[in-house]
Amino acid sequence: MNETDSLKSRYTALTQKGLNLNLTRGKPGADQIELAVGLDDVLKGDFHSVDGTDTRNYGGIRGIPEIREIGAHLLGIGSDQVLAGGNSSLNLMYIVVNMLVDRGLCGSPLRSNQSRSAICPSPGYDRHFVAADQLGFKLLTVPMTDTGPDMDQVEHLVRTDLSTNFIWCVPKHSNPTGCTYDTETVDKLAALPAMRAGTPDSPFYVLWDNAYSVHDFAEPVPVLDSIDEQASRHGTNDYIVQFASTSKITFAGSGVSFIGGSERALDEIEKYIGAMTVGFDKVNQLRHARFLQGPEGIKAHMAKHAEVLRPKFAAVQRGLSEELGNRGIANWTDPTGGYFVSLDVKPGTAKRTAELASAAGLAITPAGATFPYGDDPMDSNLRIAPTFASLDDVESAIEVLGVCVRMAAEQ
Amino acid sequence: MNETDSLKSRYTALTQKGLNLNLTRGKPGADQIELAVGLDDVLKGDFHSVDGTDTRNYGGIRGIPEIREIGAHLLGIGSDQVLAGGNSSLNLMYIVVNMLVDRGLCGSPLRSNQSRSAICPSPGYDRHFVAADQLGFKLLTVPMTDTGPDMDQVEHLVRTDLSTNFIWCVPKHSNPTGCTYDTETVDKLAALPAMRAGTPDSPFYVLWDNAYSVHDFAEPVPVLDSIDEQASRHGTNDYIVQFASTSKITFAGSGVSFIGGSERALDEIEKYIGAMTVGFDKVNQLRHARFLQGPEGIKAHMAKHAEVLRPKFAAVQRGLSEELGNRGIANWTDPTGGYFVSLDVKPGTAKRTAELASAAGLAITPAGATFPYGDDPMDSNLRIAPTFASLDDVESAIEVLGVCVRMAAEQ
Repeated sequence: MNETDSLKSRYTALTQKGLNLNLTRGKPGADQIELAVGLDDVLKGDFHSVDGTDTRNYGGIRGIPEIREIGAHLLGIGSDQVLAGGNSSLNLMYIVVNMLVDRGLCGSPLRSNQSRSAICPSPGYDRHFVAADQLGFKLLTVPMTDTGPDMDQVEHLVRTDLSTNFIWCVPKHSNPTGCTYDTETVDKLAALPAMRAGTPDSPFYVLWDNAYSVHDFAEPVPVLDSIDEQASRHGTNDYIVQFASTSKITFAGSGVSFIGGSERALDEIEKYIGAMTVGFDKVNQLRHARFLQGPEGIKAHMAKHAEVLRPKFAAVQRGLSEELGNRGIANWTDPTGGYFVSLDVKPGTAKRTAELASAAGLAITPAGATFPYGDDPMDSNLRIAPTFASLDDVESAIEVLGVCVRMAAEQ
Repeated sequence: MNETDSLKSRYTALTQKGLNLNLTRGKPGADQIELAVGLDDVLKGDFHSVDGTDTRNYGGIRGIPEIREIGAHLLGIGSDQVLAGGNSSLNLMYIVVNMLVDRGLCGSPLRSNQSRSAICPSPGYDRHFVAADQLGFKLLTVPMTDTGPDMDQVEHLVRTDLSTNFIWCVPKHSNPTGCTYDTETVDKLAALPAMRAGTPDSPFYVLWDNAYSVHDFAEPVPVLDSIDEQASRHGTNDYIVQFASTSKITFAGSGVSFIGGSERALDEIEKYIGAMTVGFDKVNQLRHARFLQGPEGIKAHMAKHAEVLRPKFAAVQRGLSEELGNRGIANWTDPTGGYFVSLDVKPGTAKRTAELASAAGLAITPAGATFPYGDDPMDSNLRIAPTFASLDDVESAIEVLGVCVRMAAEQ
């Protein structure tokens, strides 16, 4: 039996196993969620925040002091630069992008009769792209490198095309490649808004979704430069808006989200949000502050997550190496944190790979999902999300995936 | 000492008391909040909803089944017509109005180059007005009567002015007058969208904020007709969007909100929301379902609220009657539920009354706040919110207010 036949017979055998495997979404596993079970009854009848607020009642868009300290730690800024929100940082991003359109942030609103566009380093986070698309932004793809977005292309766009309004960034353990932006990239990103100093009607924003700031599971732990400090040097702080959340720290669907920004930006955002809600859930903010306690508590808690995640990510590396190593048909990332492994298969075969996987009982994120409009021009990138499945399932799934990648490459 | 001098000397004495009274916002009192203290530890480590969902993880825009049952009860519709959200029904309203503008709901989006306007029965809820204003709607005032909005004026606007897009309604124990819409009004409101049958590019919506559906504290308990049933007769269900929340049932800032709508409308809203969040806080939804249990549980819980509220509202009536009864300078409402008493003072003296009150240490909602743009054309309406203050403070505050109303009327 030659290698092709052997591959086919392995694939046939796999399809006949009746597998039901899923590597689609970046959800924490049940064992990770369980780590925060103490969150639910941490309050013990004491609902008052350190400033005396009864968190159960209405009011307070900015959030209670102790949870803003947690957000400050996640973002590496001062708590006076933090607004604490509800259970969804994506929602805060959506609100801010919506605000750019209809209100403006530290500047003019984007004119409704002009085209607007968002720079989308890709592969990237599909929900960023979908949110911007719904808000009427054209999605412009720029390549993601190992050190962050291709800044030559980004700078060219910002310099030459006034219809570009902002860039999406996941600066640490980026979704899905796992890369962390290097010093030069952070500095160049912080400088982008200054390129529009001469055209104040067309401000440019950097939306900094630091979703994985404390989500390390292996060495070396990358160090992300402070974009806030770089922005201070460039005088661009009003145009850098940062985001974080506890969703992948405590309960994925019931965490606390954060915005980090300049005093002026936060004041404007707070006022804007004040027309759409009386306030976020402060009881849940208090639960989180009491449960996480502070930097040391977060560090200890994230170490427990790392224990759960490390074997799963190791299984992905081991499986991919076994099936695809040294064949010249695939490359993949080896992250030390975050939630994903990014797999580049032979150009033109990502969709086919996903189809083969599906037929064999393995659901993977749709090929192309990591690119604007779900359209990967090379049809090459696949996102592997190994956190939600059990370790056994991850191992089985990666074997299936490897076989499918090879079969697709041969066809 | 004549009556004027006697009034002045009472006012002077009151100002010298160093009072610090507040009748501004419709917040539940601490004793009301405490009624739901069991909400926080009701889960006892069981985080799974009746359909097996681990509520702690991501996903599920529509909400868990058992909380949708609660929303269905609050709105008097089927649970398949309910989407359960986060802690703010105002936020859900904002999202829906935003959707009318940029996406459309069961019809065309509102064109960005055309003027758009919202019909605002007044006196009404200031946050409704502010939300619509922020979203670019011109606010059109129509009078509120004892049986609901003046439907002659509303129908005239909907028939003759295609730039009117929706009407705000608080149909039961209306904010602030406390009135409940009568059968004829509900029927006419349900029929409004049908007036636009011939101009499908200009749909008209009824936004039905049933915030006080179970918030009765005295007899007679008014019966609100089902707008859903009336809409079925008129074939307008897609254009009637209902809202409710548990904010004034459990914890004001940490409740669960609801949208009620047609299958088509909910599908579209769910998809729209899906681009701005991965889902609402399902753990808190589960807490609420377990704590409130069902219709009987809600009834029993609301009876406890009524016990707390009844003496405060009685004190308002008693105080206003004592100070202002039979003087021909003021009228006020005597609600059997909800959160407010609406006081109409001598035209042209509401602002002055509020100033006098403030100088005497009593904060009341700014005169005009119950009208679009904060502008009461008669300068006559004041909203009294007696729930948050203690009973003693309510009694003192109403005395101060009565004296101020009389002084302003004499000047």
